[in-house]
Amino acid sequence: MRSALYTGNSTIEVADRPPVPPASGEVQIEVAYTGICGTDLHILHGTMDHRVRVPQTIGHEMSGRVAAVGTGVTGLPVGTPVTVMPLRWCGACPACAAGHQHICHRLNFIGIDSVGAMQQRWTVPASVVIPLPADLPLTHGALVEPTAVAVHDVRRAALTAHDKALVIGGGPVGLLIALVARSVDADVVLVELDPHRRAIADRLGFRTLDPAHDDLAAEVGAWTGDAGPSVAFEVSGSAAGITAAVDLLAVRGRLVVVGIHSQPREIDVFRFFWRELTMVGARVYQRDDYDTAIELLRAGKVAAETLITHVEPLTNAAAAFEALRAGGDVMKVLINCQETS
Amino acid sequence: MRSALYTGNSTIEVADRPPVPPASGEVQIEVAYTGICGTDLHILHGTMDHRVRVPQTIGHEMSGRVAAVGTGVTGLPVGTPVTVMPLRWCGACPACAAGHQHICHRLNFIGIDSVGAMQQRWTVPASVVIPLPADLPLTHGALVEPTAVAVHDVRRAALTAHDKALVIGGGPVGLLIALVARSVDADVVLVELDPHRRAIADRLGFRTLDPAHDDLAAEVGAWTGDAGPSVAFEVSGSAAGITAAVDLLAVRGRLVVVGIHSQPREIDVFRFFWRELTMVGARVYQRDDYDTAIELLRAGKVAAETLITHVEPLTNAAAAFEALRAGGDVMKVLINCQETS
Repeated sequence: MRSALYTGNSTIEVADRPPVPPASGEVQIEVAYTGICGTDLHILHGTMDHRVRVPQTIGHEMSGRVAAVGTGVTGLPVGTPVTVMPLRWCGACPACAAGHQHICHRLNFIGIDSVGAMQQRWTVPASVVIPLPADLPLTHGALVEPTAVAVHDVRRAALTAHDKALVIGGGPVGLLIALVARSVDADVVLVELDPHRRAIADRLGFRTLDPAHDDLAAEVGAWTGDAGPSVAFEVSGSAAGITAAVDLLAVRGRLVVVGIHSQPREIDVFRFFWRELTMVGARVYQRDDYDTAIELLRAGKVAAETLITHVEPLTNAAAAFEALRAGGDVMKVLINCQETS
Repeated sequence: MRSALYTGNSTIEVADRPPVPPASGEVQIEVAYTGICGTDLHILHGTMDHRVRVPQTIGHEMSGRVAAVGTGVTGLPVGTPVTVMPLRWCGACPACAAGHQHICHRLNFIGIDSVGAMQQRWTVPASVVIPLPADLPLTHGALVEPTAVAVHDVRRAALTAHDKALVIGGGPVGLLIALVARSVDADVVLVELDPHRRAIADRLGFRTLDPAHDDLAAEVGAWTGDAGPSVAFEVSGSAAGITAAVDLLAVRGRLVVVGIHSQPREIDVFRFFWRELTMVGARVYQRDDYDTAIELLRAGKVAAETLITHVEPLTNAAAAFEALRAGGDVMKVLINCQETS
């Protein structure tokens, strides 16, 4: 079978690999689609080499069908449409003991810390396999994982229909957060520098602000009656994103940290005191978030057809990564893992 | 009558001032005791000159008895023991509209933004006067305001008996937070540099750590089974305090920002993401916090006799401020406002 491998040195190669037969308690999935995540780009560019063992198949946003199961696996007949919640926890650390398995101290994130989905057949423990509704297109099924991220972020914000939510950063996760926030009837405005991304947000019906040209304070003041938004999602990973959120939030406002900040940020802690702000970190998801994500995708509340801008054959995986890196009119790129010629 | 006035230039002068008769809706209080707060020291040293109009009587932690009332004031007979919740809000700004009057955009903090309690008779709106139980000594009554701060901080942490709480900073507010945290059966450890303050914390029965000599990470690891504390109160106002809290907190840990950070702090935002931490600002109090503070003082759960290390006559106000600034074996200093010779 064909498999897209990260081989180090910013390189993705498609090579032949023998499929792994499912051992006891495992499931072999015929992968339909694997999405390329921002994390996958980080892997490609070497910033996660301490976690990845090259050559390694990466990818963790996926859909497919059960191809074979090992002994002891029940309830997953061959042909079942599935996705994967790519987390394996130790079950013994203080985080697991406290019931926060998704942030286990020794979390194995499948597709980063172990072999991922960007191949024709992928073998994983049955415990991470999640059936998909039969009527959900498998292209949409590949969005369940990033949608679950957004659902988790919105849940960490305790977002309701009474909230005005500022989403800072309009990549796939930012747009998914905006869509999930809209699904609970929150009033959403999106901040994004890139005009292509703003155009996609426009198509999704969101009001957008361009921090390079718009006066954020004035626009947000007018939108919120000078109160400020009650919630901000920092999805840009930038120092400016954090600063803007802290400056703009209303009294008792909640800032959800979604983006990866690879260095410490200068934060106006006095403002947290003065306005009784809250900053909340949000990482991956819990099982409930998957259930909600599947339901939102099935109900058409996550506009998968607008978000998926490219579907490329597995053979073109390297070019697909490069297109995503280069930017432009691109949002979510899926790899069709069965198209290999 | 005699009044302690901040006259600028790091000076407190005791001078004669005519008492202010209570207008309609006002209450004149014969002040018994006024505590000196850290904020009062900041005022004395000029860092709040943009808010204080010199010469001004300062002070906002107090107890006393109703001396006279203006027309329209009911339920506060002369002689009633009282304290004051020294907040006046506008009622019209977005914070007030959202029900967060205590962090009103135009909050008037009585004793800073207007005339305070360090005088023989103090006239305030009846709306800020809160009766005290007849059996609460008025020395203890002067601790209601700072205890309400601690109650508010503990409430913002949503602290329960399941929590391990690290209190960083062992001045009066830090110790009050530790005492209030203990009143809900949380497991408390206090971090404080100053040996005099640690000695008082010892007397109150708290385990203390000295960040200059103890290995915080090792000690906290041993205490929490390598999980980290579930809650940290940052009461030191120092960059090191914020850093220690973020480094030490358990997954899903809550950091309550109590101390004043006069400059932005470098914060490991990635850690917030990775461990799903929460940082919460806490400012002053709400009416419920006063009720709880009074109940805790009355029940003897706030060890007022240990916290109050000095009671000085009004005449000695300047020396009392200096003693507090100089440090040493001093914690809460009260001014006896009726002792004027």
